[in-house]
Amino acid sequence: MSKTKPSLPRGTRDFGPKVMSKRSFIIDIIRKNFIKYGFAQIETPAMENLSVLTGKYGDEGDQLLYKILNSGDFLSKTSKEDIEKGSRHLMTGISEKGLRYDLTVPFARYVVMNQNEITFPFKRFQIQPVWRADRPQKGRYREFYQCDADIVGSKGLWNEIELTLLFTDVFCDLKLEDYIIKINHRALLFSLAESTGLKEQIIPFCAEIDKIDKMGEDKVAENIKAMGANDRQINELLSLFHENNKEIILERLINIGVSKKVISAINSYFDALAVHSNKKIKVALDLSLARGLSYYTGMIFEVKPTSVSMGSIGGGGRYDDLTGVFGLKGISGVGISFGLDRIYDVMQELKLFPQKIAGRLDVLIVHFSEENLKHAYGIVSGLRDKGIKAELYPETAKIKKQFDYSDKIGVPYTLIVGDNEMASGRYMLRDMQTGDQKPLKMDEIIHRLKQNGER
Amino acid sequence: MSKTKPSLPRGTRDFGPKVMSKRSFIIDIIRKNFIKYGFAQIETPAMENLSVLTGKYGDEGDQLLYKILNSGDFLSKTSKEDIEKGSRHLMTGISEKGLRYDLTVPFARYVVMNQNEITFPFKRFQIQPVWRADRPQKGRYREFYQCDADIVGSKGLWNEIELTLLFTDVFCDLKLEDYIIKINHRALLFSLAESTGLKEQIIPFCAEIDKIDKMGEDKVAENIKAMGANDRQINELLSLFHENNKEIILERLINIGVSKKVISAINSYFDALAVHSNKKIKVALDLSLARGLSYYTGMIFEVKPTSVSMGSIGGGGRYDDLTGVFGLKGISGVGISFGLDRIYDVMQELKLFPQKIAGRLDVLIVHFSEENLKHAYGIVSGLRDKGIKAELYPETAKIKKQFDYSDKIGVPYTLIVGDNEMASGRYMLRDMQTGDQKPLKMDEIIHRLKQNGER
Repeated sequence: MSKTKPSLPRGTRDFGPKVMSKRSFIIDIIRKNFIKYGFAQIETPAMENLSVLTGKYGDEGDQLLYKILNSGDFLSKTSKEDIEKGSRHLMTGISEKGLRYDLTVPFARYVVMNQNEITFPFKRFQIQPVWRADRPQKGRYREFYQCDADIVGSKGLWNEIELTLLFTDVFCDLKLEDYIIKINHRALLFSLAESTGLKEQIIPFCAEIDKIDKMGEDKVAENIKAMGANDRQINELLSLFHENNKEIILERLINIGVSKKVISAINSYFDALAVHSNKKIKVALDLSLARGLSYYTGMIFEVKPTSVSMGSIGGGGRYDDLTGVFGLKGISGVGISFGLDRIYDVMQELKLFPQKIAGRLDVLIVHFSEENLKHAYGIVSGLRDKGIKAELYPETAKIKKQFDYSDKIGVPYTLIVGDNEMASGRYMLRDMQTGDQKPLKMDEIIHRLKQNGER
Repeated sequence: MSKTKPSLPRGTRDFGPKVMSKRSFIIDIIRKNFIKYGFAQIETPAMENLSVLTGKYGDEGDQLLYKILNSGDFLSKTSKEDIEKGSRHLMTGISEKGLRYDLTVPFARYVVMNQNEITFPFKRFQIQPVWRADRPQKGRYREFYQCDADIVGSKGLWNEIELTLLFTDVFCDLKLEDYIIKINHRALLFSLAESTGLKEQIIPFCAEIDKIDKMGEDKVAENIKAMGANDRQINELLSLFHENNKEIILERLINIGVSKKVISAINSYFDALAVHSNKKIKVALDLSLARGLSYYTGMIFEVKPTSVSMGSIGGGGRYDDLTGVFGLKGISGVGISFGLDRIYDVMQELKLFPQKIAGRLDVLIVHFSEENLKHAYGIVSGLRDKGIKAELYPETAKIKKQFDYSDKIGVPYTLIVGDNEMASGRYMLRDMQTGDQKPLKMDEIIHRLKQNGER
């Protein structure tokens, strides 16, 4: 065993207690709402066969898959020629498995493999890490969690509505108020491309308008012109983007050929949301929203924070064909995803995490002697039995050392067990913030700590 | 994109909704108790540098590590000679990272890398999957969760005591009653080996007595004899294993040279547990318990189910040197681990999972028309706002199809929204078990569903 100075792989992170309790705070709220909305949790393995993963994320995605070396003598099934053909060819001979790149392809595989047991519509959620051999940079990691909820096997508009409500409830529970849910629809993008004279170039057209936020309107207009649009068409397009009144937008969209059915669906969607007057639903039609068009086929969503400069903290949309690539046709659905890392960053920046979750303990018990320590065994257990997060300093030590420990881990109260306390049955409870201390009976201590724990 | 029939890698598993809700039931109880006992959660990345993992689990362990192929042109840093030297040599040139094999080595790395920020004693818990390229067999998987809690930087006996209480509280909350916590101490094993004349062969000696459960006493006695013990020594040893009275065992152990300090610690341990008379603490001294002796240096634990034939469902012990291999000396600690998969299997076999967790919904709302469906939007949201897990059948469909769906996913109640209901403001709530149905006002419905949800 050599003594190595240990390190972390680039682009990966440890989550220590403080960060972890904040991450758990977010995940618990997302999970609780997924369950409240009737989604059932599944988990899939980290490793998938490369035959399942490869070809699903484009050429670039294939390059970003982490491949796992076959076990044992991995070269035994390869020939000299395989090696001479280079890394890319050799890879297929020495690696059969990879780490999942997202939760959608594993979910599609799951649906196909369990199609006979699944009752459709199937509402599933999944909260697990994914891995991408991406270049690490600020806010982009090689291991990160995805939190996905999908409804497959139903075309009802209610699904889009309830996913919007789900976004709303999660951000409400997180007390994250400065955000907007942008929505758009593939049919609108298609009509826009057509009316701009770029029907045949819909994918690059959408890629361009998706860049308006980053590059500015002028640059995008220039690029669209280069694609073949004329000035009138571009002005028409930009004026639509500038329009804030939804009714006017929809009317103009009918004029450029969007089907009444789509307009009616969008109206129904907004009408249904308006019924939920007890919720602050922050949703806006944004014609320049154009994420993942090659995958999504209906309505698309993106959640953007409004008071900090950051990418989307959630997104999703409707798709027509989840599982066709695995030979099962006709499975359509709609899904959303929460961006845990970015939500964390936004909440950190806006100081939205509640004070309380930072501390892991309600009380630390300190003592002066071996006898006091042993006496405290029953006290700490008694407190825990009442649901109080109690800890006993686990060995005899100078009282100063024990208080230092208490300060460092940030405990709201310490309970002091000395000979006087043992004799009187009243233990000194010290408020570590104010320094006030008072001898109290056990039931008073429990009452005080429970009150504090619930604050 | 080729249409592949999708499959799972051998030894890995999908967890569907039903299994997942049961696994979450167990994990939530373990986690809740870890937190109650003052442990702080951390997470480490799935991928670790191979320099961190290699050499920590013995030669066999090194073979069982999953190695990740370097990204890009992985052959570019290798030579012809590297390839000619074969897989094992080539591996080091084309793979720098591996998947974690357990949670202990990543924890040790974490402690070393964060030693200046950590306040000792440090209580951490970690619940994450690990990966081993093991031969898959019944109950042994290539991806499985570990649930570990460790206290490092304290030698106080309280740590061993509270970990025993933690085992007890977790199994109590799970309502898993048929188990025994076996304990032993390395010093006892050492004295036993010495008194059997096998002082120099302590590791193989322990390996032998560890097999008594599986191979029987006679076979083990034979093997120990072959190692050099005489009949008198073997009889002495076996008679100690047969003794059930703890006091007599400890007295005889003093006679064979176990230090009074160790005997006193064991007595203090049992005395402290006896104080917790409100808990059913199922702990027994078992001199033949000898797990992982090369790692553990003090007390060792193993939890065995008593009414089903299965391996251990928990274990742990005290160790002297967590981080020496990474150059940080003197970090001792004690830790335990829960075996999630085996706990699941025991609970499944003993039918210990509560009925309620199987169902994911409290109520499904069904309807007869587009108008009814739209009316139901507000109803489902209102129920969810009250914390009720409600779902709306998301599109218009024949009522039979909706009830079929309700039966298949196993909902306790359906709420029927038809024209009559819309007119009267009383909705038909049907108990799906009894078939009884009754028109009720919303507040009555909420009351009924909340009562049922709490049962």
